[in-house]
Amino acid sequence: MEDPVAFQQWFAERRAANTYRVTPVPLDELDGWHFDPVTGNLGHRSGGFFTVEGIEASLGEDVGAWTQPIIIQDEIGILGILVKRFGGVPYCLMQAKMEPGNVNTLQLSPTVQATRSNYTRVHRGNAVPYLEYFVDPRRGRRVFDSLQSEQGSWFLAKRNRNMIVEVSEDAEVPEHDNFRWVNLTLLKDLLRLDNVVNMDSRTVLSGLPFLIDEPDRGGPAPHTTAEILSWFTEARSNHVLERRRIPLNQVKGWSRGPERIEHERGTFFTVIGVDVEASSREVARWSQPLLAPVDRGVVAFLARRSGPDADWQLLVHAQSEAGTSDVVEMSPTVNCVPQNYAHLPEGQRPPFLAHVLSAPPSRIHFDTVLSEEGGRFHHAENRYLLVEVADDFPDDVPEDYIWMTRRQLTGFVRYGNHVNVVARSLLACLTD
Amino acid sequence: MEDPVAFQQWFAERRAANTYRVTPVPLDELDGWHFDPVTGNLGHRSGGFFTVEGIEASLGEDVGAWTQPIIIQDEIGILGILVKRFGGVPYCLMQAKMEPGNVNTLQLSPTVQATRSNYTRVHRGNAVPYLEYFVDPRRGRRVFDSLQSEQGSWFLAKRNRNMIVEVSEDAEVPEHDNFRWVNLTLLKDLLRLDNVVNMDSRTVLSGLPFLIDEPDRGGPAPHTTAEILSWFTEARSNHVLERRRIPLNQVKGWSRGPERIEHERGTFFTVIGVDVEASSREVARWSQPLLAPVDRGVVAFLARRSGPDADWQLLVHAQSEAGTSDVVEMSPTVNCVPQNYAHLPEGQRPPFLAHVLSAPPSRIHFDTVLSEEGGRFHHAENRYLLVEVADDFPDDVPEDYIWMTRRQLTGFVRYGNHVNVVARSLLACLTD
Repeated sequence: MEDPVAFQQWFAERRAANTYRVTPVPLDELDGWHFDPVTGNLGHRSGGFFTVEGIEASLGEDVGAWTQPIIIQDEIGILGILVKRFGGVPYCLMQAKMEPGNVNTLQLSPTVQATRSNYTRVHRGNAVPYLEYFVDPRRGRRVFDSLQSEQGSWFLAKRNRNMIVEVSEDAEVPEHDNFRWVNLTLLKDLLRLDNVVNMDSRTVLSGLPFLIDEPDRGGPAPHTTAEILSWFTEARSNHVLERRRIPLNQVKGWSRGPERIEHERGTFFTVIGVDVEASSREVARWSQPLLAPVDRGVVAFLARRSGPDADWQLLVHAQSEAGTSDVVEMSPTVNCVPQNYAHLPEGQRPPFLAHVLSAPPSRIHFDTVLSEEGGRFHHAENRYLLVEVADDFPDDVPEDYIWMTRRQLTGFVRYGNHVNVVARSLLACLTD
Repeated sequence: MEDPVAFQQWFAERRAANTYRVTPVPLDELDGWHFDPVTGNLGHRSGGFFTVEGIEASLGEDVGAWTQPIIIQDEIGILGILVKRFGGVPYCLMQAKMEPGNVNTLQLSPTVQATRSNYTRVHRGNAVPYLEYFVDPRRGRRVFDSLQSEQGSWFLAKRNRNMIVEVSEDAEVPEHDNFRWVNLTLLKDLLRLDNVVNMDSRTVLSGLPFLIDEPDRGGPAPHTTAEILSWFTEARSNHVLERRRIPLNQVKGWSRGPERIEHERGTFFTVIGVDVEASSREVARWSQPLLAPVDRGVVAFLARRSGPDADWQLLVHAQSEAGTSDVVEMSPTVNCVPQNYAHLPEGQRPPFLAHVLSAPPSRIHFDTVLSEEGGRFHHAENRYLLVEVADDFPDDVPEDYIWMTRRQLTGFVRYGNHVNVVARSLLACLTD
């Protein structure tokens, strides 16, 4: 599939061919889920899937400690995209997939998006199609395969195995109903549309440069790889991220009613329950909690380049979130939900946020609303931006920030544990 | 300093110039240390330094769970080597340093080997010399700077910041009494001598290839970097390493007497106490526990190469230990204390151990006894070997093992969290 019109037609057909219903349900009445009477933790009776528990985190003396609910899901799932060349041109096998938290029900997913519960059949559903290509190394060439973190504000040290597997040109891979081979050029175009390509696809697609050697666009790198690694090591060594898991009923400033869990100031997120019916999923009906952020976030790189053909230099932030697995990860310049800071004076809001939000259109090179994982998050949208800084942008940046080229940042993706999920997401949108 | 004879003279002088005394003391009488009455954990009254606690670990169904004592030291120290070129030739500023656990008292240490307690002065000692070069980025070029793990069988997820900092050729850096600029060629020769270059030096020296671009010796790489990373990701995803900290008095199979903590079968290690007097250290007298392995270990790479000038291919093992921070790390082919397996039948001993121990001298390309960190471990020696396999060595290796070139393994060192301490140690001995 190369044609945007044909794609939209197919996608609309898929939406019509399947029936979906997502109904809000009070947490207290959520089938199969219950609050533990001692800890107040929310979990499934099978012990599988995930739990909502509490965490106490501290970023050291300056910020102090806080507590919050957080999703615990220790098992490592697989997010995998199958690639095959047709006439020498690579295509990705993409899936039209319904997730209950999606604003628009159906988004474009990787070939395989499976938790370990999925593929070990905790939920007794159908087998996961195409899974064999990602568990059997003889089925294809693994061009990208690494453990990658997910949202650190909402998950405790959650990670998934991100894989791109290329099968040989003569491999017979059938296109099942909800799956299509999508050309890379079309895929790049789709990434510029609001809420089409889902988060799981984007994080895997951040590894595409390891499939296709991108031409080096040149332009100076402001720092060597050794300097960037040293900056990162220093941030990990000097920052403090202390935390401990606590029972959900010991989280302060949050309340649990029969309907939902919410913050007393109405900030951050709520935890709600939904009943789901879907004709296209391995299991036709289920119930689950979803984490619903209170407002849309902003994820933005400030960027600059030496000329219109040179590679972008991105202003990268060493950011800690409550659930970050190893103190800090490389994050976009801005990664926040502005609403959470609206009650604070300007000086206490996230650095560079005002700069991003006030940028004139001529400096905005990417601006798309994209969703976070609809299997865990309800209507979780971020506005992803690439904003070119003005020529008079100061050369000195705070010590938790560093300029690096897009190519350098991509290089760190490969080793896992370096680049956070929203940075990878935005990188995927910026591939050549 | 370039001359081995001059070095030995200087080293002997240093030994003679300082007085050291290490006296065994029962743990119950160790000044400043005590067993917590509730948990049995061994700690210092200041709350600083480290504690000895318990851990319960499981590697999944095949191996089952076990408990053991383990050292907890969460703070990140600095191991740093200062480099300066004289006439274009790089020299490392090395230190003749006494550690209480060393078999021979004095070994060659990095320029700086400081726990955070050291340099934040928990112990009220003298300032750490040369520390400024490693905390102030303007003092030199950081060519290698990463967080690296230490012994996973003895430490819980301990890591230190490993740094190589190069100062400019015209920087004035005085040689203090116990410090000398050592030429790299001499340093390589010293690595072939038993118990001269200490562990802290070796782990930092594994980053030397990032100071001096080594010539690529060529020879085929049996796997691409993508294939190796995929193998590693699969090992981290599929292996199980579950663990939880437990009170020391809940560790099973170990006993604590007034003198020491020991395993009931006399295997693994004991924890003993020592009183220390040293004229050359920041603090002149102190008392501390040391972990004393029961016997010498074997750390060996099986290796092969396509010709006498080609790069070595090393057989790397994805190994889990109780304290490994992220499930597995890249480890030498063999890394064990054979004595711990002596009571087991041959088939249950570590793979390839017999192969290493029975290799004829013609196939042994490196064979040196080196010590692990004498600040925590008492007489902890490993025999480090590089053993060339015979031509009929099977091509198929177990799935937790993979062949890679020395150059590839070195590349992973840079990103931290990939290559374990004994593998880095042995790599340092194998640099060109």
